[in-house]
Amino acid sequence: MKSIANFAPGPSQLYFTVADHNKNAFREGITSLGHRTKEFEKIFQGATEGLKEVLSIPSGFHIFFAASATEIWERSIQNLVEKKSFHFVNGAFSNRFYEIAKQLGKHPEKTEASFGHAFDSNISIPADTELIGLTHNETSTGVSLPLEFINKFRKSNPDSLIVVDAVSSLPYPVFDYTRIDSVFFSVQKGFGLPAGLGVWIVNERCLAKAEQLLSKGCNIGTYHSLPFYLANAKKNQTPETPNVLGIYLLNKVIQDFLRRGIQTILKETEYKAAILYNALENHPSISPFVKDKNIQSKTVIVAQGGEHTGQVASYLSGLGIQAGDGYGVLKKMQLRFANFPAHSKEQYELLVDSLEKFK
Amino acid sequence: MKSIANFAPGPSQLYFTVADHNKNAFREGITSLGHRTKEFEKIFQGATEGLKEVLSIPSGFHIFFAASATEIWERSIQNLVEKKSFHFVNGAFSNRFYEIAKQLGKHPEKTEASFGHAFDSNISIPADTELIGLTHNETSTGVSLPLEFINKFRKSNPDSLIVVDAVSSLPYPVFDYTRIDSVFFSVQKGFGLPAGLGVWIVNERCLAKAEQLLSKGCNIGTYHSLPFYLANAKKNQTPETPNVLGIYLLNKVIQDFLRRGIQTILKETEYKAAILYNALENHPSISPFVKDKNIQSKTVIVAQGGEHTGQVASYLSGLGIQAGDGYGVLKKMQLRFANFPAHSKEQYELLVDSLEKFK
Repeated sequence: MKSIANFAPGPSQLYFTVADHNKNAFREGITSLGHRTKEFEKIFQGATEGLKEVLSIPSGFHIFFAASATEIWERSIQNLVEKKSFHFVNGAFSNRFYEIAKQLGKHPEKTEASFGHAFDSNISIPADTELIGLTHNETSTGVSLPLEFINKFRKSNPDSLIVVDAVSSLPYPVFDYTRIDSVFFSVQKGFGLPAGLGVWIVNERCLAKAEQLLSKGCNIGTYHSLPFYLANAKKNQTPETPNVLGIYLLNKVIQDFLRRGIQTILKETEYKAAILYNALENHPSISPFVKDKNIQSKTVIVAQGGEHTGQVASYLSGLGIQAGDGYGVLKKMQLRFANFPAHSKEQYELLVDSLEKFK
Repeated sequence: MKSIANFAPGPSQLYFTVADHNKNAFREGITSLGHRTKEFEKIFQGATEGLKEVLSIPSGFHIFFAASATEIWERSIQNLVEKKSFHFVNGAFSNRFYEIAKQLGKHPEKTEASFGHAFDSNISIPADTELIGLTHNETSTGVSLPLEFINKFRKSNPDSLIVVDAVSSLPYPVFDYTRIDSVFFSVQKGFGLPAGLGVWIVNERCLAKAEQLLSKGCNIGTYHSLPFYLANAKKNQTPETPNVLGIYLLNKVIQDFLRRGIQTILKETEYKAAILYNALENHPSISPFVKDKNIQSKTVIVAQGGEHTGQVASYLSGLGIQAGDGYGVLKKMQLRFANFPAHSKEQYELLVDSLEKFK
């Protein structure tokens, strides 16, 4: 049967307006549009200014486009770290950020939390740490860092750049941008778009650091170095021929979010998360993997199903509901449910009703 | 009036089947398809095997996906050069490949030809050159290197990797893959697709070089290093969440090319180039910028219009025909006409008729 709801955590369900925007893109010739045209510049400006509005990003921040969040891991280390970064690792994705720093020849350190659990609240970070890497939402386990946890590092480590991976949580979290220096995400998760675009948000401190590394003769890359990004972004352009269609669709969805109201989206996200966690807590066969409510992700909800996992997944699938598999070694023991703006309250209510009827 | 033909050299006109393929992609859920699924692996395999067939690429070559050809310039230098590359520079794009090598801290050398002219036939390349960078088709000036020119370096420089930028010429040129090591292009030119995907073709010598650099402790990047690309490609997967829709559309267009027959496409390319060059040679106001027939590009035809350029462009535009601007400082003095598989014989005949009627 045709799927009526896709809860895979990304690439995930498209936001309901995307198919129409895409039709218009073809009709308007966006798919052949030159990236050095006034028309492209308007799209770039619409997307970046709209995003600042949706996410309440203050002035002093810049928005650049990469091909993926994976690219932004690499570019972040390349542009912002000469020697040492420090990473909070609690799953596959936060660990990959750490590994990329190692591969680039830096000397990263990490602190680890066991999967599904909180970090120690008293972690001391070396004073010479240039970048603190925090994964706001660990997509592999459904652990979300409380904002207070993220916000405390500015005071204890004023010279470090605080870089937040929000790949699978934005647009939900309302970050305090005075306490972080960079955030990034990819569009195929919370923005409900086809994959192929990463969004990198950085402040002036990041730009200054990249300039400083460049002046020391460090390799900060070429077309996607922060200074070259900025020189192009000042003209509302990109360094290279980008995924023009992806940026166009992002702009359109951002405008849709603005019309719907970000507060409405946030409240709906919380409502949907609440009813699913409630259903999981009262379920005979599956339960929330993350027990500590303080770190339960609102946007990627992971259910522990043990031996029942396959049965539950097939049952849902038979109803046209696609759950996401568990990640990595937990593929067959867990299910993941994305809770993005593309997932309607009705879909969540159907999911919860269906889970309650599972025997 | 609505454009009836877009000759901009890229992003250019879409191949005529792309809009329908795109509709199907949305209908089939490709836009939400996970990149670790069997379905994605089939698409990856279809695109890479199909491309080998279309371009007559022998075994021993691998095909990887990047975000743009700009990325491939950077990745090529990063993966294939420890110290020295050598570049044939005859325009803005060939020069950018050289500049990227400099920016990455290598010690590239170059030989230059004045814009629109051939390289000296007796250029000696230093014996310690690790990579010879050749731009088969310089998009900024409409100069194409003869295949014999490219093919001679294997003998004179057997230890160098021969890397060919074919961004705006493939699928037209039939390279001798025994005499080159790597070719790359981006899909928004000759493949008539929306921008946002680069295709990187490398042989085992390139992989061995990257492994050698890695073992020496050189920085060859992370998720888009050649060894990591290969490890994923063996599973018909990509290192990161890629532009899934772009790869799907590429596969579809490749299959269309195969059905149409690559010989038909090549002959049509030559026919269209011949009638346009003929019209330019006999035109009172504009003429071919590249005079030497041996290096006249078949796929990006540049017309020198001098003071008449603006008039000719407006005249064509009034007929619904969009010429591409000249590149860089020649923007107002030249027009560029892409001659890709997406441009039909009928469009070329209309262009030629219209140019002949210009007074």
